[in-house]
Amino acid sequence: MSAGGDGPVTVLARGEGLAAWRQIADGLTAEIEAGRLAAGVQLPTEAALAARFGVNRHTVRRALAVLAERGLVRATQGRGTFVETPRLAYPIGRRTRFSEIVSRAGREAWGDLIAADSVPADPATAEALGIAPGDPVLELQTIHRADDTPLSTARTCLPLPRFAGLDQAYAALGSLTRAYAEFGITDYTRRSTRITARPASADEAARLDLAQGRVLIVLTSVNVDAAGVPIQATRSLFAADRVELVVEG
Amino acid sequence: MSAGGDGPVTVLARGEGLAAWRQIADGLTAEIEAGRLAAGVQLPTEAALAARFGVNRHTVRRALAVLAERGLVRATQGRGTFVETPRLAYPIGRRTRFSEIVSRAGREAWGDLIAADSVPADPATAEALGIAPGDPVLELQTIHRADDTPLSTARTCLPLPRFAGLDQAYAALGSLTRAYAEFGITDYTRRSTRITARPASADEAARLDLAQGRVLIVLTSVNVDAAGVPIQATRSLFAADRVELVVEG
Repeated sequence: MSAGGDGPVTVLARGEGLAAWRQIADGLTAEIEAGRLAAGVQLPTEAALAARFGVNRHTVRRALAVLAERGLVRATQGRGTFVETPRLAYPIGRRTRFSEIVSRAGREAWGDLIAADSVPADPATAEALGIAPGDPVLELQTIHRADDTPLSTARTCLPLPRFAGLDQAYAALGSLTRAYAEFGITDYTRRSTRITARPASADEAARLDLAQGRVLIVLTSVNVDAAGVPIQATRSLFAADRVELVVEG
Repeated sequence: MSAGGDGPVTVLARGEGLAAWRQIADGLTAEIEAGRLAAGVQLPTEAALAARFGVNRHTVRRALAVLAERGLVRATQGRGTFVETPRLAYPIGRRTRFSEIVSRAGREAWGDLIAADSVPADPATAEALGIAPGDPVLELQTIHRADDTPLSTARTCLPLPRFAGLDQAYAALGSLTRAYAEFGITDYTRRSTRITARPASADEAARLDLAQGRVLIVLTSVNVDAAGVPIQATRSLFAADRVELVVEG
């Protein structure tokens, strides 16, 4: 089954108990997963697909809706249907490290420091870090890229005075893991992660190079050092179109 | 600090290094978290809050943006700003059970079966279940409620013939865990969960009683029986406004 080019009409397995829209959806799924329909490619129009498969446009529309539900294509108002770039699989667990995850996917990881400030801890941050509300924390605003694509932006709070100057280490090293090493922390673990989602604001969309209103996955996480002392409370905003979180059972 | 009623101007701690918008945001956060500003309550207008705190509207707007980022309020175009219902904390792990999680939160759990069909496994489902593409599976469409609020809708595929008739057990019992017990499965565990997010389609929004375009958290999960055999491949769509997933480190 081919969706591209001007090939002959594709013959569906009629009368074998398999609805035409399902056969079309599964066939296109297989083509996308095999990479024959590559990320970013525009699918033929509904009319062209209907002619190709010898079905009506309603059947094609139903098949395309299944592909969209599977996250394999995106229908853009007035511009057509495009094959999605596969989302980066991002494991969430005790040893979640942005730079390792991105490197393992064969992409280059870098974190840009866009702002750093000493601020009083808000109530939620204070509770996460086990300090008193109003105690000083170092607040970092960062953007995390895989190659040149921004995957997430984060607000990270670290207790002061322990991490005074960590912002400069981060700016130079592009990674919290590497910056921690400068502060004698060679190991740290994730204590908890909370996950929800919401639309991006205009500012957030601009920061992540997203269309306004696209969806963000919101991760609120706490990391602790080898002694179990909280060292980091982070609120990360991931571009949902670019990342899939993975939790192993 | 109080945001309601017609009380006197609230005195902010000027000149103590704490920006006014931050003090207002933290004060309102504390009121919401303490339940003094209850879920569903409309906040006073920007003008009223500006008068209350003796600041300009820009400062109020910045404080409200912080509350929205914290997921504590929702600004509705043209209708004002409302306190959000706290999201249900939904732990993701080896023993994730919808009915137990909802019951522990003091709410009544029920799953409605809205469709059941025997269908050939699509490629992704077949891979998840360790069967051949096209092998028959029982496909359930369900809606999961806490009290009367729908939290999620799911498409679940179970291998046939092993689970023939499970749809009837589900319809009667309102829970997969209870339906499995009828099939001799007293324990099962989560092998993996993948998480992303996207806007709801019109159909999905209607099913979950959401405004169209609100955000869904998409969970793709596989459960295995005590012998490690896959018994269930599910794609769940959670209303992101109503649920927060929790992953313990």
